[in-house]
Amino acid sequence: MHRDRFYTLAASCPDRTGIIARVTGFIAEHKGWVLESSFHADDEAGRYFMRIEVKADSLPFDLAGFCGRFAPIAAELKMDWKISDSAVKKRVVIMVSKQEHCLYDLLARWQSKELDIEIPCVISNHDTFKGFVEWHGIPFHHVPVTPENKPASYAEVQRLFEEARGDTMVLARYMQILSPELCAAHPGKILNIHHSFLPSFVGARPYHQAFQRGVKLIGATCHYVTAELDQGPIIEQDVIRIDHSDSPDDMVRYGKDIEKTVLARGLRYHLEDRVLVHGNKTVVFR
Amino acid sequence: MHRDRFYTLAASCPDRTGIIARVTGFIAEHKGWVLESSFHADDEAGRYFMRIEVKADSLPFDLAGFCGRFAPIAAELKMDWKISDSAVKKRVVIMVSKQEHCLYDLLARWQSKELDIEIPCVISNHDTFKGFVEWHGIPFHHVPVTPENKPASYAEVQRLFEEARGDTMVLARYMQILSPELCAAHPGKILNIHHSFLPSFVGARPYHQAFQRGVKLIGATCHYVTAELDQGPIIEQDVIRIDHSDSPDDMVRYGKDIEKTVLARGLRYHLEDRVLVHGNKTVVFR
Amino acid sequence: MHRDRFYTLAASCPDRTGIIARVTGFIAEHKGWVLESSFHADDEAGRYFMRIEVKADSLPFDLAGFCGRFAPIAAELKMDWKISDSAVKKRVVIMVSKQEHCLYDLLARWQSKELDIEIPCVISNHDTFKGFVEWHGIPFHHVPVTPENKPASYAEVQRLFEEARGDTMVLARYMQILSPELCAAHPGKILNIHHSFLPSFVGARPYHQAFQRGVKLIGATCHYVTAELDQGPIIEQDVIRIDHSDSPDDMVRYGKDIEKTVLARGLRYHLEDRVLVHGNKTVVFR
Amino acid sequence: MHRDRFYTLAASCPDRTGIIARVTGFIAEHKGWVLESSFHADDEAGRYFMRIEVKADSLPFDLAGFCGRFAPIAAELKMDWKISDSAVKKRVVIMVSKQEHCLYDLLARWQSKELDIEIPCVISNHDTFKGFVEWHGIPFHHVPVTPENKPASYAEVQRLFEEARGDTMVLARYMQILSPELCAAHPGKILNIHHSFLPSFVGARPYHQAFQRGVKLIGATCHYVTAELDQGPIIEQDVIRIDHSDSPDDMVRYGKDIEKTVLARGLRYHLEDRVLVHGNKTVVFR
Repeated sequence: MHRDRFYTLAASCPDRTGIIARVTGFIAEHKGWVLESSFHADDEAGRYFMRIEVKADSLPFDLAGFCGRFAPIAAELKMDWKISDSAVKKRVVIMVSKQEHCLYDLLARWQSKELDIEIPCVISNHDTFKGFVEWHGIPFHHVPVTPENKPASYAEVQRLFEEARGDTMVLARYMQILSPELCAAHPGKILNIHHSFLPSFVGARPYHQAFQRGVKLIGATCHYVTAELDQGPIIEQDVIRIDHSDSPDDMVRYGKDIEKTVLARGLRYHLEDRVLVHGNKTVVFR
Repeated sequence: MHRDRFYTLAASCPDRTGIIARVTGFIAEHKGWVLESSFHADDEAGRYFMRIEVKADSLPFDLAGFCGRFAPIAAELKMDWKISDSAVKKRVVIMVSKQEHCLYDLLARWQSKELDIEIPCVISNHDTFKGFVEWHGIPFHHVPVTPENKPASYAEVQRLFEEARGDTMVLARYMQILSPELCAAHPGKILNIHHSFLPSFVGARPYHQAFQRGVKLIGATCHYVTAELDQGPIIEQDVIRIDHSDSPDDMVRYGKDIEKTVLARGLRYHLEDRVLVHGNKTVVFR
Repeated sequence: MHRDRFYTLAASCPDRTGIIARVTGFIAEHKGWVLESSFHADDEAGRYFMRIEVKADSLPFDLAGFCGRFAPIAAELKMDWKISDSAVKKRVVIMVSKQEHCLYDLLARWQSKELDIEIPCVISNHDTFKGFVEWHGIPFHHVPVTPENKPASYAEVQRLFEEARGDTMVLARYMQILSPELCAAHPGKILNIHHSFLPSFVGARPYHQAFQRGVKLIGATCHYVTAELDQGPIIEQDVIRIDHSDSPDDMVRYGKDIEKTVLARGLRYHLEDRVLVHGNKTVVFR
Repeated sequence: MHRDRFYTLAASCPDRTGIIARVTGFIAEHKGWVLESSFHADDEAGRYFMRIEVKADSLPFDLAGFCGRFAPIAAELKMDWKISDSAVKKRVVIMVSKQEHCLYDLLARWQSKELDIEIPCVISNHDTFKGFVEWHGIPFHHVPVTPENKPASYAEVQRLFEEARGDTMVLARYMQILSPELCAAHPGKILNIHHSFLPSFVGARPYHQAFQRGVKLIGATCHYVTAELDQGPIIEQDVIRIDHSDSPDDMVRYGKDIEKTVLARGLRYHLEDRVLVHGNKTVVFR
């Protein structure tokens, strides 16, 4: 939690000697003040990951200046990279159905500025939360989804997301499966919270599956959405203890506490550019 | 989570042989169907604790009938006892200051009926959440507290609580210390969430105390309020891992997630009559 | 943890009214002092579970006397029941391969009398721990297992278990799959520790499976062994947090800490007759 | 977990721009391959911390060569630094009294090479574990401690530690308070496991203190020993859930599982030079 404006560089490249020196040397050369830095070598993949926060006003140029000067180094290192500015708020579109817990939780974090984001709109397949969302001064779009209208509905969701200039879409217990086209159009931008400890209990009614199997812990998983259901890269997970006295309804109730916490943590990591995806796995620099 | 109406007997008495048999014998004699039952012998105190849920329509009498017939047995066993009816919603008055997280969390649980209670009013020493609370159709009382007006303010809080026929008062990060009179007037009815793992870091700014001590986990404690600050019987606690990279501000943020969960769990135990106080300790039949 | 001798009744029966009253009434009638008691109604299965500890010297008869007098009640309630005597140590045969952690852990608990059991022998498919086990005064049997000799080997294991009058067999990271015959011969008596959070990652090399999937927590599961691999009733589970920096080898190392704790907890529940199996699920009265 | 030999640099210095670039630039200049690197800025203290692992055979010089070339840079940055060689095993002296759990746990980890250390000797104020330790081929010294002989006893402990050329002394539930002289002679080298979640329950019988206070979680703390009892820098902590049914004896039993895990984790961090002390706090680069 830094009060001063800073730039965040998140990058990965093939591993070799001298990567940190090359990147931090560039920053030091311009008197950049490093607030936080994390590095990781994936030995199996031969790939190097990094995330560096630099105080904006310690540099003699702005973000565009940084990018222009850094680009040749990134090219030399064959880097995938992005850089963000803490002064530019991310725009997060929330998708919700009829369950309160994640929506209330996200809006409380937004109200208190714990999540320092813009929420340009909330989209739902029900109108349950229209009043609640609008009370917060946030536009609410009701986009019903029926077996018949799915392509049109998801086209409308995509249009609204783009119109809102969304950076991130959060499925806050949105109980519909997005179309493969929508998923493919925004890789690494759509986060879901699945109400099981993946890879256990993929698909529908995971708490009932958990009840039948007699597990002693239940969990939740925040992951990026890909075309394959519940198979995207995992960002964050957690579990909670249950026992034989808990019915599926009790599990649903316990699970909500894990779901909202895991979603909020995963979303924060994502928004702070702490998550780097490689294949179907994530590096999360906490 | 039972759909059918039930009565909950919560009781304690000096330990001796035959207690369970005596109590469950009475229930069985009237064909009462026991949904859930828990028993605990405190060997050190020589005291016996129990909680029994009986299906209401399995009995040939109503709650008053139950009480009338059970009273002689309770007297014989020298019991402290109470019995509640699942069809009568508990009335919970929420006290709040300027922090969102516990208030949003409790209202989300109330909206979804996870907490099946009445909230007759919210009282605050600030008017920050007036609009939010009233949007939910709940009366909001602004009772400012200053160093000068404390006795009058707490008298007003007590008047409002009694006017609202409150069963329980929840300090949902209410940042004032209640008067000893108010505490003494409602023993076992006022719940607080303290933002540390008690008995560590009693009093003000516990996260800053934790930061100075360099602990590796921080916690929260839900307890009954007594006249002695942060010393009442503990109902529930939990912790979350931190590390050297976390500032006091980060700890405050992490702590909120624990605070709201611990408060909600403690409140649920309390409302379901799962908490029996003995001296400065609690038996919690989860 | 009771110092006095006690009997433990563990039982289940079809649910109806009056079960607790009938059983505890019998105990009370004979002035039995109940130390601990737990009850559970499985609404879905319509079955009732209980576990009661009675102080031995509070009763006017011995264990045989208890059984004789209780049998008619059990028959009336259509009960599956067993009763054990805390003065009779359970006999636990440990099966091990080449990994230290669970074996050292169990022997430490046995040495300190935390596990108050007899260990009549340790059986292994390797001779790695022969000296260590014998130093503790425990017989060690080396029963090699090869693809060719499996039937003979498992026959020998079964012979040794029976010769040792074993009550319980613990697979303490025993890296062979027992024969279906052996499993079937001792239902509810063979405990395994599986190194994943089941049902995730059944079978071989679960930590490598977990690494490939990119999960953020890994776990361990203590379960009863049945003929179907890793599918038996789960007794206890736990997890530990990992991150992107952990290799499969790191996970193996972290996992050991969970495995030995989960196995020890599951074994304790089993030995104290806290585990009641129903179908493929367990009731665990902690 | 790296199979190749590597050097580990652990250092701290006043914060300024260019520190990472200066240090990693030096490594890159000599073609050093960085396996793992961690950095932390303590804003409050204005101090910078780092830990870097470099593959030994990627460098054109040995450890002495590294030190000689790095010294001027360290001087320029006003660094406190140390560097270790993964090929040189740390020498860990274990102190124990009469409880098994930590001793068995550490020796199991040593046997399996999970802890790749030398244990030159075990020292105890009792002879309980003489046979067990010697069976492992480790010398055992019985140094009784009585109220009268303390100075002489601790002088003997110190002599044995120095004779053994110990790097680290581990108090594995050693139930005596070391002399201030002994503590002062080896700052940052003596690790203790305290059986409470510090700062709660300092001093004797913490589980009984916890029982009296009625806490719902108990914990353990691994910390460096300083002259002030239970006040040294905390390395690692963890907790476990208990409830009203747990006696102080039960808590002792639960606590052991946390104690040995927390001690093993803390010791590992220490041995891998992941712990940097600053004042009474630690940076732990996990």
